[in-house]
Amino acid sequence: MTVENISGYKLLLNIYLMDEGRYFLAFVSFVGCNLILAVAAGSLCAFIAPAAAGSGIPEVKAYLNGIDAYSILAPSTLFVKIFGSILGVSAGFTMGKEGPMVHTGACIANFLGQGGSRKYHLTWKWLRFFKNDRDRRDLITCGAAAGVAAAFRAPVGGVLFALEEAASWWRSALLWRTFFTTAVVAFVLKAFVQLCSTGNCGLFGEGGLIMYDVSSAGATYGSGDILAAIFLGVIGGLFGSMYNYLIDKVLRVYSMINERGAVYRVLLVICISLLTSVCAFGLSWTVSCVPCPTESSKDCPTQTGNYLSFQCPSGSYNDLATLFLNTNDDAIRNLFSTNTTREFRISTLFIFFGAIYFLGIVTYGIAVPSGLFIPVILAGACYGRLVGRLFEPISDLDTGLYALLGAASFLGGTMRMTVSLCVILLELTNDLLLLPLMMLVLLVSKTVADIFNKGVYDQIVKLKGLPYLEAHAEPYMRQLVALDVVSGPLITFSGIEKVRNILDALKYTGHNGFPVIDEPPFVDSSELFGVVLRSHLLVLLKGKNFSSEQVISGQDILRKYAALDFAKPGSGKGIKLEDLDINEDEMEMYIDLHPITNASPYTVVETMSLAKAAILFRQLGLRHMCVVPKSQGRPPIVGILTRHDLMPEHVLGLYPHLKPHK
Amino acid sequence: MTVENISGYKLLLNIYLMDEGRYFLAFVSFVGCNLILAVAAGSLCAFIAPAAAGSGIPEVKAYLNGIDAYSILAPSTLFVKIFGSILGVSAGFTMGKEGPMVHTGACIANFLGQGGSRKYHLTWKWLRFFKNDRDRRDLITCGAAAGVAAAFRAPVGGVLFALEEAASWWRSALLWRTFFTTAVVAFVLKAFVQLCSTGNCGLFGEGGLIMYDVSSAGATYGSGDILAAIFLGVIGGLFGSMYNYLIDKVLRVYSMINERGAVYRVLLVICISLLTSVCAFGLSWTVSCVPCPTESSKDCPTQTGNYLSFQCPSGSYNDLATLFLNTNDDAIRNLFSTNTTREFRISTLFIFFGAIYFLGIVTYGIAVPSGLFIPVILAGACYGRLVGRLFEPISDLDTGLYALLGAASFLGGTMRMTVSLCVILLELTNDLLLLPLMMLVLLVSKTVADIFNKGVYDQIVKLKGLPYLEAHAEPYMRQLVALDVVSGPLITFSGIEKVRNILDALKYTGHNGFPVIDEPPFVDSSELFGVVLRSHLLVLLKGKNFSSEQVISGQDILRKYAALDFAKPGSGKGIKLEDLDINEDEMEMYIDLHPITNASPYTVVETMSLAKAAILFRQLGLRHMCVVPKSQGRPPIVGILTRHDLMPEHVLGLYPHLKPHK
Repeated sequence: MTVENISGYKLLLNIYLMDEGRYFLAFVSFVGCNLILAVAAGSLCAFIAPAAAGSGIPEVKAYLNGIDAYSILAPSTLFVKIFGSILGVSAGFTMGKEGPMVHTGACIANFLGQGGSRKYHLTWKWLRFFKNDRDRRDLITCGAAAGVAAAFRAPVGGVLFALEEAASWWRSALLWRTFFTTAVVAFVLKAFVQLCSTGNCGLFGEGGLIMYDVSSAGATYGSGDILAAIFLGVIGGLFGSMYNYLIDKVLRVYSMINERGAVYRVLLVICISLLTSVCAFGLSWTVSCVPCPTESSKDCPTQTGNYLSFQCPSGSYNDLATLFLNTNDDAIRNLFSTNTTREFRISTLFIFFGAIYFLGIVTYGIAVPSGLFIPVILAGACYGRLVGRLFEPISDLDTGLYALLGAASFLGGTMRMTVSLCVILLELTNDLLLLPLMMLVLLVSKTVADIFNKGVYDQIVKLKGLPYLEAHAEPYMRQLVALDVVSGPLITFSGIEKVRNILDALKYTGHNGFPVIDEPPFVDSSELFGVVLRSHLLVLLKGKNFSSEQVISGQDILRKYAALDFAKPGSGKGIKLEDLDINEDEMEMYIDLHPITNASPYTVVETMSLAKAAILFRQLGLRHMCVVPKSQGRPPIVGILTRHDLMPEHVLGLYPHLKPHK
Repeated sequence: MTVENISGYKLLLNIYLMDEGRYFLAFVSFVGCNLILAVAAGSLCAFIAPAAAGSGIPEVKAYLNGIDAYSILAPSTLFVKIFGSILGVSAGFTMGKEGPMVHTGACIANFLGQGGSRKYHLTWKWLRFFKNDRDRRDLITCGAAAGVAAAFRAPVGGVLFALEEAASWWRSALLWRTFFTTAVVAFVLKAFVQLCSTGNCGLFGEGGLIMYDVSSAGATYGSGDILAAIFLGVIGGLFGSMYNYLIDKVLRVYSMINERGAVYRVLLVICISLLTSVCAFGLSWTVSCVPCPTESSKDCPTQTGNYLSFQCPSGSYNDLATLFLNTNDDAIRNLFSTNTTREFRISTLFIFFGAIYFLGIVTYGIAVPSGLFIPVILAGACYGRLVGRLFEPISDLDTGLYALLGAASFLGGTMRMTVSLCVILLELTNDLLLLPLMMLVLLVSKTVADIFNKGVYDQIVKLKGLPYLEAHAEPYMRQLVALDVVSGPLITFSGIEKVRNILDALKYTGHNGFPVIDEPPFVDSSELFGVVLRSHLLVLLKGKNFSSEQVISGQDILRKYAALDFAKPGSGKGIKLEDLDINEDEMEMYIDLHPITNASPYTVVETMSLAKAAILFRQLGLRHMCVVPKSQGRPPIVGILTRHDLMPEHVLGLYPHLKPHK
């Protein structure tokens, strides 16, 4: 809402100055406004929460894959994401607010999921039900779905996005939960749109629930159109994979600049802001004016909408300015608009496509929350219209529908989603009759692009070095067994362990899970009792219920703790080793680990095929898996398998002769 | 296509006779035509493939859950399903062709998946890639998706149906595959619809890709409509759960009749056919005529479409006959039609709702392929219109849209799907603006109905006694460990086993998997080598590569078999024990099982929580899971856990003191 309004006011100022003929002042004011907004966004992001930069979808994806990095969903990230995104989009960057909205949704869900924030004195008791891994993960999946639902006003698209792109583990209950979430989003949105339809919230509410309605165009299509769709799919796949390749390269360069410190980050933002402003204003300035169409019923030229006057005299309009100097929403609406085949010249579309493609690539990665959807849709719609013009002789489809198919093809080529993109685009444009063509375009573009590289979000996850677990096992894993990749040393505890040993283990290793082994005289021969978590050990030690003898304390010891003490704390919020205050005497005492040990850990035999073990690990969403010996007469556990042991880098580092899959 | 045409000709005959005033002859011809078609459908089903009766969705669901019953997807079932469904729907039964089309899709997929049919000399070599459990399962999921996509002309709805209702295991690759499948369906459909739009395929193609277009109605709605939607949701939930309850009861009665033999099945079909015909004709006869609307631009009365004349004089029409004596498609189109608030009288709607609700319940379960979607949509649309009339004072929505919401509520109440129903209905009616209300209705109706019982398909699966594995573990399972439910006796083989022992085990048990244990002197102490499958043992024995000594033959033995010998055969097609011809001398010889044993079986420790073991079993889609001892010095395996050991009946049979979850 705010984005549209700030952008609107900025444009109005600009239009006013242009109308007065004070062109240089208009240019300076345009660049200046953008720069101020950009610096504000960049500073917020660089100084307060660097994790808020970028789209946020890769981070949410990584979190839902089980990567619990502290800053990803922290409240500060949430704050910067919301305001940084508003400022950034208003600053005229070639970026969208859709990715950040997904991240925002996930952050809010995480905030609720960890029971509010003790730091900011915002806590609710009923939120304690989410204090475990699984429910929190579900809640964050719902948050991501809500983000998409709100960004595109596409509730069903939101559910599918969560399923196809965001979530790594899916269960049937989740379908129902995300559906419920996005239904609520749809209702709130509908209410706001209805409230704002009277025009008292600025530009928000324009378009109603369907943002870019093209349904009136009526779609009948023949073999020519199918050919065009396949052609669009192919070039969407090529452009998309190249886009991903270039973004990867640019991100590598930017990360070197960004590593130097917050000031460098802001400087980079300033550079890109200047570049964007100069491009938008300068390129619009260079093109000649187009005479207004005579047959159109719309006003021309106007100050907003389809026919922007810019520097043009009355009776003509500037078609490039119509795209560049509008809000993103309006630019897309113009490109998708039907019965306007000649409105944009071919040269204009070429210039705009080139500029947006280039600006989109250099903008992603600067210290501003920036979504990828909008630049991709804009560029795709552009070449869609171009292809439409190319196929005019053999095609009946409207150029506006070609723009829609072009956007679909480019989205498919970069993001590699299928069903969710299809539904999101349907809900954006309300054109169900185009569905078969849209499916075809998405299928072709994804297939073509998959030949060259991965989807853009997967690439970014990898570039950030996050240990993302793929859904399938790598083929070379079939040649290894579970024991081959387990990295030592293995640290185990006795069922009743000396406090000093526990503290040492916690201090000198970073492990988060330790096997607990029962030994004689408590059992006949030593056997694996279970796995105890670092976080639970810390809570247990903090309680100081030690005994001087090696005796079984039983479940009674748990009465001295509240049930919630062992609940999963908010990320980065748990007890730390430094918080413990244990003196030398206590160090020599014993503590019974049985009550807090998970006695049903998932185990695999050491000779289990690594591929199978990896699938088990991934399917069940594990963090630790015990590797047990095959034959008797050996220690009851030979290693612990973690996410890092399954990473291709780790495995191929150990066995360089194995070839990774291309 | 054929369905619409047969029904159409039947109706035309009827209309012709009515126009001539020969009412009794019309009645007799109507009943007679229906009876002939019904007997044909019933005989096909009762004598050739009883498994083809009913919707087929529960069977597909069960198959995708891992229940590999022979007849479910056999070619004979496919044949009867296609023709039985055409005849059955043409016979005027209150049933749809949607469920059968899903089953048909799955059958075709299975047919391809097992490499065609050797019996009917239809085989293709390239289909061998599907000769394993997982790929065949994926193919059948795609088949089910294609069925829905074809039935409702809803490609995205098909994908979601496969995900939400049909599939038990989902992986990301499957989304892409079902999407591809339904995209092809959409294209073929589009081509046929375009081909038939000239009218040369009878009634097929009517409505184009959007079967019941209501998009013209324009939806703005306020709080009154939201109230109405909630109300609709509640009664949809109540009616839906009652529907499921009654269907369950009727099915129990019918199964007693059907068990008596094929003739009884056909007799039941005859009874229901007579009942349906008499209801349709007789009830239509009793109502009085309605004068044609003066303001309408449509012709009235007509012989098809919105205003059927039936026995009425010129200038008036019979509104009940308009619903009863039309094709199902037209009846739904009439109910969904907008700007026709007064077209159906309240009393007519009441009568039709009651008749359809009752006939729908008594029709399901007779020996005819019969879908549930159509009766549910008809009944739901009926009470939707009634509620629309009730809320007229405070609501702006058109009665046609109320009919749509009513259908949604009843579907939600019986089938308990959410996202997929939502998308299917959208694709049926092309009304995206109604989406928030539709989501609300579905949420409420599912929530209300879930209080009382399960979804109709789950109920039928259970009634058929199929061992369906639920996605979640039952709460009482947390009180048990894996060993508690393993049923004996455990039969194991040595790594190199005597042929007689193998034959005996195959003969005297029905087990499909046997643990293979390596024993001294081949290893130091006996250890679990892996699990060998019955089907693989049969192939190995058939090859007769026995040796007189207990020696390791190594992988060389496999050279004597073709790789495809061990591929999964079509259901019911593998080698049987009777096919083996082994003489007494050979009985005493040995065979090395190592080469065909799966050396990486999934194992759990005996003390693993049963709930966790059940989740592991289900998530990974297993058929056998080895239970290994916790402590050393015992045999290396203590039991094998199968699907049947995890069934609530089995577990609660062993531990009657545990309470099942309500």
